[in-house]
Amino acid sequence: MTLTRYLPILLLLVATTASAADDCIPCHREKTPAAVRQWEASAHARAGVGCAACHGSDHDRIVKGEVSVDAKTCGRCHQKAYDRHLASRHGMGLHSGWGCTRNLPERDPAECRFCHEKGSAKALTGVQCARFLKQSSEMGATGCNRCHSVERSCASCHTNHMTDLAIVRNPNVCAKCHMGPDHPQWEMWQTSQHGTLYASDGPSAGPTCQTCHMAGGDHDVSRGITMSSGGTPYPSEKAEPAREEMVTLCSRCHASSFARKELDRDDAVRTQSAAILKEAEAIIWDLSDHGLLDPMPADRPPHPLRGKVLVTDGQMLYEDTSHIERLYFKMMKYDFARTVKGAYHQNPAYTHWYGNAELKMDLIDIKAEANRLRERKAGGAGLGASAAPTTEMQIEERLKALKNRVSRGAISEAEYEKEKATILKELPEKGR
Amino acid sequence: MTLTRYLPILLLLVATTASAADDCIPCHREKTPAAVRQWEASAHARAGVGCAACHGSDHDRIVKGEVSVDAKTCGRCHQKAYDRHLASRHGMGLHSGWGCTRNLPERDPAECRFCHEKGSAKALTGVQCARFLKQSSEMGATGCNRCHSVERSCASCHTNHMTDLAIVRNPNVCAKCHMGPDHPQWEMWQTSQHGTLYASDGPSAGPTCQTCHMAGGDHDVSRGITMSSGGTPYPSEKAEPAREEMVTLCSRCHASSFARKELDRDDAVRTQSAAILKEAEAIIWDLSDHGLLDPMPADRPPHPLRGKVLVTDGQMLYEDTSHIERLYFKMMKYDFARTVKGAYHQNPAYTHWYGNAELKMDLIDIKAEANRLRERKAGGAGLGASAAPTTEMQIEERLKALKNRVSRGAISEAEYEKEKATILKELPEKGR
Amino acid sequence: MTLTRYLPILLLLVATTASAADDCIPCHREKTPAAVRQWEASAHARAGVGCAACHGSDHDRIVKGEVSVDAKTCGRCHQKAYDRHLASRHGMGLHSGWGCTRNLPERDPAECRFCHEKGSAKALTGVQCARFLKQSSEMGATGCNRCHSVERSCASCHTNHMTDLAIVRNPNVCAKCHMGPDHPQWEMWQTSQHGTLYASDGPSAGPTCQTCHMAGGDHDVSRGITMSSGGTPYPSEKAEPAREEMVTLCSRCHASSFARKELDRDDAVRTQSAAILKEAEAIIWDLSDHGLLDPMPADRPPHPLRGKVLVTDGQMLYEDTSHIERLYFKMMKYDFARTVKGAYHQNPAYTHWYGNAELKMDLIDIKAEANRLRERKAGGAGLGASAAPTTEMQIEERLKALKNRVSRGAISEAEYEKEKATILKELPEKGR
Repeated sequence: MTLTRYLPILLLLVATTASAADDCIPCHREKTPAAVRQWEASAHARAGVGCAACHGSDHDRIVKGEVSVDAKTCGRCHQKAYDRHLASRHGMGLHSGWGCTRNLPERDPAECRFCHEKGSAKALTGVQCARFLKQSSEMGATGCNRCHSVERSCASCHTNHMTDLAIVRNPNVCAKCHMGPDHPQWEMWQTSQHGTLYASDGPSAGPTCQTCHMAGGDHDVSRGITMSSGGTPYPSEKAEPAREEMVTLCSRCHASSFARKELDRDDAVRTQSAAILKEAEAIIWDLSDHGLLDPMPADRPPHPLRGKVLVTDGQMLYEDTSHIERLYFKMMKYDFARTVKGAYHQNPAYTHWYGNAELKMDLIDIKAEANRLRERKAGGAGLGASAAPTTEMQIEERLKALKNRVSRGAISEAEYEKEKATILKELPEKGR
Repeated sequence: MTLTRYLPILLLLVATTASAADDCIPCHREKTPAAVRQWEASAHARAGVGCAACHGSDHDRIVKGEVSVDAKTCGRCHQKAYDRHLASRHGMGLHSGWGCTRNLPERDPAECRFCHEKGSAKALTGVQCARFLKQSSEMGATGCNRCHSVERSCASCHTNHMTDLAIVRNPNVCAKCHMGPDHPQWEMWQTSQHGTLYASDGPSAGPTCQTCHMAGGDHDVSRGITMSSGGTPYPSEKAEPAREEMVTLCSRCHASSFARKELDRDDAVRTQSAAILKEAEAIIWDLSDHGLLDPMPADRPPHPLRGKVLVTDGQMLYEDTSHIERLYFKMMKYDFARTVKGAYHQNPAYTHWYGNAELKMDLIDIKAEANRLRERKAGGAGLGASAAPTTEMQIEERLKALKNRVSRGAISEAEYEKEKATILKELPEKGR
Repeated sequence: MTLTRYLPILLLLVATTASAADDCIPCHREKTPAAVRQWEASAHARAGVGCAACHGSDHDRIVKGEVSVDAKTCGRCHQKAYDRHLASRHGMGLHSGWGCTRNLPERDPAECRFCHEKGSAKALTGVQCARFLKQSSEMGATGCNRCHSVERSCASCHTNHMTDLAIVRNPNVCAKCHMGPDHPQWEMWQTSQHGTLYASDGPSAGPTCQTCHMAGGDHDVSRGITMSSGGTPYPSEKAEPAREEMVTLCSRCHASSFARKELDRDDAVRTQSAAILKEAEAIIWDLSDHGLLDPMPADRPPHPLRGKVLVTDGQMLYEDTSHIERLYFKMMKYDFARTVKGAYHQNPAYTHWYGNAELKMDLIDIKAEANRLRERKAGGAGLGASAAPTTEMQIEERLKALKNRVSRGAISEAEYEKEKATILKELPEKGR
């Protein structure tokens, strides 16, 4: 087996060492000086792995951009890392749209390769992103795919020709993507107890991202995580072994009983925060059922994956929606993420101020906006409007909203009939 | 006196060195490896201060969580540091609620010890936090008490078993708590002239948090500060000597005349910013007097300390209030703090953009929301509403608001009578 | 020429070395210890450049604050750096107001010198800042001029008496000003690929601010930039050579074709983002034309440079405007800047989340607020209002708005006549 394992490397070496170093370097020392400098200082150079080992030797095709060096190329030699990477959250497709994105205006053809093998119409992944589909090709490239190409590009972390492991073991390398309003893991870690000890005294005193999420160099960065990236808890058959893995990891430093208690508490924070989110989401759906969103989904550009309907899940957009949905987007994507990830990363300011406090303040704003929208419907009658007597028209309105709820599956037919009866009972009481 | 002073340490050493190192280590090297590793590398180990010196030797009670190692334990040997710590802002209770929190649902019994001696019903501190009382036990633990247990836990900064002073002298150790939207002292320092010099060339070039706030290792971190943590200036008999202390500190590097001039200017920024805050607060109270907050305090869950009344001071909540109060919360807790603390920490971006500009933009929003609320009351009559002629009903309204102002002590009885007369004078002029 | 060039230095040395070091040090070692310590460790001390070389020797005038050591003083010896600095964006005046600021209440007389030669009424620069003019003298000093005195003070970066180049070559030195909500270049760089490599392995692995913006020590920091600081593209005759300069710089590491392609893509992001901004700005002007801003410019304190008119360009204020303008201020000054500068600095989170997503969410809010303002005008008639039949009054309203547009130069007289005719045609159709 040992021989079989190293065979591809051996073949590569035979095929490439001679050509690469000799043919490419003189010219590329001028054209791409950093690449040459970095390669020369790399373990690849020391092992005699030259340019052609990865780039091939057909210069015409390289220049035309037809040769891509992606994770698969690296996997030819680094098979275990590649396999674990693909099995992890890093290895799942995150960026393509429903159907083929090449039909979208201004789509860069180079993006095809994120989702398709060259020349194939079959999508590599089943994951689509509505938010990506709304972007221009340029924003998609600079804003989305600079991070969301990680599953196809080891260079996302390993920096092309620079292979010094000191670089990729530095927590800063994770910061490039794991930062910002939606998942500030780097910021959280940096000012947590863990990050603080690291800052004072290096990785022996304080654990880095890699210490816990890539223990022993394992490229499955998702080990020990018990929820989706959106914060939905995994079913217990998946979550429980993951939790055990994490506790085992923590117990390299901490008492496992301590670690378990801390993580359980973080789970509770997640559950409580999800409930706040749910409360806000229900308000928006109720407004939608009553036709009160402004504008309503029917009156705005269609959602790229679902069409002219309300979307408040992981495919929710941050553009072409309404003010109250934008407030909810912040709650879901920023506040909730900061609360939950802040808790799991032991950062009080992110858990409480950047997370929980924002979540609750945004809930206030959502309720206030919902009130405004309801009053508006009532004809701008002001504060007293909600206390006005029920009219036939209002009954009709409520029945219509109830119908909407059953259509979207929020209540069953039976519940519909029961609630309808309750509403209709109010009719004779009001006379007329 | 020297003997008396060292007596407790000597007694501890006699009582514990033998037992601790011998009995605990073999097992705990497996169970809590980091703790053992850290202790072994610590000054405590070198001085023969073993596990039992702090944890006692009753393993059953330790396992049951009945033995807490808190600041008092440390104070048995480190008495001066403990005394100065208790005298400082770090030593004041910041987290408990009015009355006993154990009566609140879901309160973690372990939290009792923040405010009470074990087994005692007497509160250790007179300081309560309404915001803490609104949180679940889990959020209280991960979001609040991870910082707000500093008065009872030296480990907040000294990191349990790691006693290397290099760690606790690193400014990052302060970042764990002194960061975030409400008091980003770490962020401010980091990008100030002081932090910049430190980043380039270490503490000899640029002062750290500790250089100014713990000069000479003094554990009274509040020396030289002239205002409460909420930004209220101290009375001059307290502020003036504090200022002198700070100027003396600054003059270790700067001309004292320069330091004094800078700090005086920062005082002016504080005064001016407090005035902006006051203007916004007055708008909210006026709306409340006219019954225009939505919802009014009477119609929402009671404030944990004050009940169903409006609260806009340091005990203001960020949840279960109204949209306009949430805007004010941000102004008071975030914008004002950033402006003032930014100024005292010489950070222009925090003083101006994160502080002053936000303060003024939020004032715009508060005025806009106040307008909306007033118009709504006027029956949604739109832009022209405020110009409508005064009716008898409006007079009644104004008298009621005036009554509210006198009840809450905002104006005296005499002022009330005078203003009432002015309002009544308008009545005949309007006829009817 | 060599002699002529070094003459001033030689004269200085003759005039000052003896006096400075001998006369000032003993006393100032007590009074300003850091200054002395720093000078003693500096290249100035080694070269025999003493206190009087910069400060002069008239102690009375120094104490009275009449001697300022500014960029011009440094330029006497460091002429090339001074010249390049003045030619750069750093060298342009950024802070003074229209006319003489000394006429403004509470203006610090020391600020005169930012814009005037001592004793002269002639302004040094033609650039004014309305936002500065709205601030108190203290906020101007701590919040604005701490950064915006760079053109007159080399100490902005070179830290007074500390001349160690290691300090000024550290990217942190730029962070003092180039950070915050409006231009977080430091934050962007820090978490970009460039900053990440620097953090792991120093400036040989990852370029600093200085590597690209002060290549070879050139003090013209604006080289290679193709837009104004507000993001307006330069005309091609200025932009094209600048782009070539930048590509040449990039090609010290990257293939120039790669660099060009990346920068072109960033240009596209800029153009697209500017279009979003334009859409929002047009909404505000339309509201203004219809008299719907609340409050209208006529009803608020005058803009310091333009008076009682709407301002949405680089001189836009963040105070004393309306809610919708405050939203636009954030879009223009924060969101747009983060998107564009994030793209040019290769930071995906700033380009997309902190930039593009905020830009689009704020556009939603601006549209929502515009709707509210329009409905309000329509008498609070609620959702149906916009569908109401056109009345004579509405026609009049639209003609008035059209007139406003021609007055402010948004449309030509011919366009006005044409659109007026279209509006008038609707009149008979509606009957009456």
